[in-house]
Amino acid sequence: MSEALRTDLYQLTMMQAYWKSSHNPIATFDYFVRKIPSGSYLVSAGLIYILDYIENLRFEDDDIDYLKTQDFDEVFLEHLRDFKFTGDILAMPEGSLAFPLEPIIRVTAHIMEAQLVETFVLNKMNFSTLIATKATRIVHAAHGRAIAEFGLRRAQGDGFLEATRATYIGGCASTSNVLAGKKFGIPISGTMAHSFVTSFDHEIDSYRAYAAAFPKRCFLLIDTYDSIEGAKKAVVVGKELEEKGERLLGVRLDSGDLCELSKQVRKILDDGGLRYVKIVASGDLNEWKIDELMNKGARIDMFGVGTELITGRPNPALDGIYKLSDVIERGKHIPKMKLSEETKKATLPGKKRVWRIIEDGKFVKDIIALDHEIIKNAAPILSQIVKNGKIVCKKPSLDKIRQIASENISKLPDIYKKLDNASEYPVEFSRELTELREKIVDKIRKEE
Amino acid sequence: MSEALRTDLYQLTMMQAYWKSSHNPIATFDYFVRKIPSGSYLVSAGLIYILDYIENLRFEDDDIDYLKTQDFDEVFLEHLRDFKFTGDILAMPEGSLAFPLEPIIRVTAHIMEAQLVETFVLNKMNFSTLIATKATRIVHAAHGRAIAEFGLRRAQGDGFLEATRATYIGGCASTSNVLAGKKFGIPISGTMAHSFVTSFDHEIDSYRAYAAAFPKRCFLLIDTYDSIEGAKKAVVVGKELEEKGERLLGVRLDSGDLCELSKQVRKILDDGGLRYVKIVASGDLNEWKIDELMNKGARIDMFGVGTELITGRPNPALDGIYKLSDVIERGKHIPKMKLSEETKKATLPGKKRVWRIIEDGKFVKDIIALDHEIIKNAAPILSQIVKNGKIVCKKPSLDKIRQIASENISKLPDIYKKLDNASEYPVEFSRELTELREKIVDKIRKEE
Repeated sequence: MSEALRTDLYQLTMMQAYWKSSHNPIATFDYFVRKIPSGSYLVSAGLIYILDYIENLRFEDDDIDYLKTQDFDEVFLEHLRDFKFTGDILAMPEGSLAFPLEPIIRVTAHIMEAQLVETFVLNKMNFSTLIATKATRIVHAAHGRAIAEFGLRRAQGDGFLEATRATYIGGCASTSNVLAGKKFGIPISGTMAHSFVTSFDHEIDSYRAYAAAFPKRCFLLIDTYDSIEGAKKAVVVGKELEEKGERLLGVRLDSGDLCELSKQVRKILDDGGLRYVKIVASGDLNEWKIDELMNKGARIDMFGVGTELITGRPNPALDGIYKLSDVIERGKHIPKMKLSEETKKATLPGKKRVWRIIEDGKFVKDIIALDHEIIKNAAPILSQIVKNGKIVCKKPSLDKIRQIASENISKLPDIYKKLDNASEYPVEFSRELTELREKIVDKIRKEE
Repeated sequence: MSEALRTDLYQLTMMQAYWKSSHNPIATFDYFVRKIPSGSYLVSAGLIYILDYIENLRFEDDDIDYLKTQDFDEVFLEHLRDFKFTGDILAMPEGSLAFPLEPIIRVTAHIMEAQLVETFVLNKMNFSTLIATKATRIVHAAHGRAIAEFGLRRAQGDGFLEATRATYIGGCASTSNVLAGKKFGIPISGTMAHSFVTSFDHEIDSYRAYAAAFPKRCFLLIDTYDSIEGAKKAVVVGKELEEKGERLLGVRLDSGDLCELSKQVRKILDDGGLRYVKIVASGDLNEWKIDELMNKGARIDMFGVGTELITGRPNPALDGIYKLSDVIERGKHIPKMKLSEETKKATLPGKKRVWRIIEDGKFVKDIIALDHEIIKNAAPILSQIVKNGKIVCKKPSLDKIRQIASENISKLPDIYKKLDNASEYPVEFSRELTELREKIVDKIRKEE
C-alpha cells in the first residue's frame, strides 16, 4: 500500500511551489538527532519501513481526488500521478549505534521527492530508534536477566507492532504481543492475569486450573491477594506438578516491594524444595528501577516491562530532524545550513559521511566528514541502500539486526552506557567540514 | 480485518485454561483509570475502534496455524475457529468526561470472550483517551486561539492516525497530517519548512515562490536566519500580494523567545500596513508554555503543537486497567475484586453504572452505583453499545463526537480545568456499593 499522503501538508504545498517556480534541484537532506533524551547513544532502527515505503511510493487515484478538494493546482496534481522516488539514500544499517549530529539517513534526490519523504522518515525512524535504544538500556540494567516486553496495552495505539519489533532489536527476550510473534517471529511469553485468579472461588483453584491446562509452561501470579500466601500455594501446586512428572516454571510478582518480596518468596520456594522455580517481576518497571533492584540483591530471574519500554517514558519522542545540507545548482554543489537565533539549532552543511574509529574491538570516536573525504583507519558507517530509486541493499532478518545491535553495544565502552551521567561519546568534524561550516555561517550573516 | 491476535499471550493461555477446566462463567469487567496523569478529568475516546473490533473479531486460519506452533491444545484451537463475541458492552459515548474509578467501558460476556478483548480495549482506549484529554488542556490554555496539530513526525509510528483523530475530538482546529484529513475529514493546514527557505539563494526568493504558488493560502516561515529580518521580507511579499489583489495570511515563528518576537513581528507587520496578517507560533509547545505566552501578552494568533500533543508528553500512557468485577456462578452474581498489598490498587466489586448530577448546566458530582440502583436527579453516563454480540448504538460522526467533548468541557466548572493543582472532581460510591465493597474485603481477608 502506498503511504504517499502519510505526510505533512506543507510537504505537498512546498512541492507545488517548487514545481510552479521550476525550482527542483537535486538536494541532500540528513536525518539526525541533536540531543539524545537519555544516555549517550542511539540504536538506529526502523530502516525496513523506509525501504518498503520507497518501493511502494505513489499517489493513488483517491489520493489525487482528495487533494483536489484542497486548493491544489490541477496540473500539479496530474503531475503527481507519475510521481516516483528516483533518488539515492545512504543509511546506517538497522541496529547500528548513532550519536548526536551524525546523519543516520542521507537522502539525495530532486527536492520535490526528498521533501515529500521527510515526514515518513521522521515518523518511523524517530519512534523505532527511540524504543530500540530504550530497550538496550533496560537490558543493560538487568545484567543478563531476561526482559519480557509486556507493553501492548499501554502502547500508543497502532504503533504497538513496530514498538515490539524495536524492543526485540534492543535485546528483549520475548513479548506478550501475539501478533508481533506471528508477524516477526519474536518469542512470545505470558503468565496469567489477576482476573484469572479472582474468577475462581479460591486462588489455589485458579493455580490448579492453569497447571492442568499448561503443565509444561506454568507461571503463577501470586500477588492477587497476598504475595506470601500466594507463594505458599504455588509450592503446593508445584509439588502436585512434580507428582505428574512436570515442573512449575515460575511465579510472578506484580506489586509491593519487589526486592523484599522476591527474597521472601525465594525462601518459600527453596524451603519447599522448588529451587528451580523462577521469579518473574513486573509492575511499572524501567531501567532505573531494575538497576536498583539488582543493586539491592533482589532475587528476580526475569523482568516483565511494559509502559516505560513501549512508550519510551519519560521521553516518548526522539527529536530527530531532517535538514537540507546541499543543493546542486547549475551543476555546482551549494552547501546549505539553517542558522536560527539559537546556534544550538544550527545544522551541518554539505553532503557528509560518518566514520568510526575502532581500536581493540572498542568504539573510540566518530568523525563526520564531507562526502569525498576518506578517513584513514576508520570504518564508514553509512552505506547505500537506494540508488536511482531502487533498493540496492539486502533486508536483513530481524534476528540479524538484533545481533548487529548486540555486537555494537558490546563494542561501546561502559562509560557511555551508564544510565545517568553517561560520558559523551566523541563525535568530531573533519577539518574540511569545520572550514566549510565557518565559511557558510559568514556568508549567511553577510547576506541575510 | 480481524485483530484477534492483537492481544497478550496470557489472554489466550487463560482462555485455554478456562476451557480446559470448563470454567467459562458470565463475567463482567470494567475499563477504568485509577489516576489521571495531568488534571482532574479524562475525555473518553477510542470507542469507535472497539465497535469495529467486536464486529470483526474472529480467528483466521493463519492465526490458528501460528498458534499451533505455540504449545496450545489442538482441540482448543479448533474451538477458536468458531469464536465470536456474544456478550454485552456498556460504554460512555466518545467525547464524554470520565473521572477516576468510573467504568468507562463495561464488558459482560463469557469470561473467555471478555478476557480476550481486554488487551485491545486497553491499547485503543488508553491512547485515544490520553490524547483527546491532552488536546482539551492545550485548547483551554490557548483561550480561543486555534490549535493546529503538527505532530505526525514525532508520533509513535503507526499510532499517528488515531492520535490525530483524538486531537480533533479534543478541540484542535486542524492537522498537518494529510492522511488524517483524507480519512477523517479533519481540516488540514501547513506552512513551509526551513528547507524550503534554504533551498533558494535568498530567503525572499523562497517567499515569492510560495506566494506565487499559493496566493490565497500563503503563510511564510520567518525564523530560518533571523526572525526580524524575515518579518521585514514578509512585509515586502505581503505588499506584492496586495498589488495582485491577494492577502498574505500569516507568518510563522518556530524558535527563539516567542513572546518577545511575536510583539516585535506584530509591530513590523502593523507598521507595514499588514494588520490582518496572523502570527503562528510553534516549537516544542505544550499547555504550560502556551498558558505562559498568553499570560505574558504574546501577540500570537494560532499555535502549532506537535510532539507534546501527539505523544501526551510528559505522560505518554494512560494507566487504564480492565478488572473483573462480577461472575455469575450457578445463576448467582458473585461480586469480585482484587485486594493486593497496596489498598490503592484494590478494585470496586459488582456490576456498576455511573450517574452524573448536573445543576444549572454544570457538572456537580458523579456517583458510582450498583447495576440495579437508580440515582434520582442524575443522568446515567453509560449506555449499551453491544447486545448479544451485535452493535446496538449509532456510530456518531467525528464532528458530533468533537461537539460532545466541547459541550462536556463547557459544563465542567473551571476549578477542575486548571492546568496544575486542579480540584478533584467528586466521585462518590452509592451506599450499596460501599457496603458491598466492605463485605467482600472482609470475606477475602478471612478466606485467603
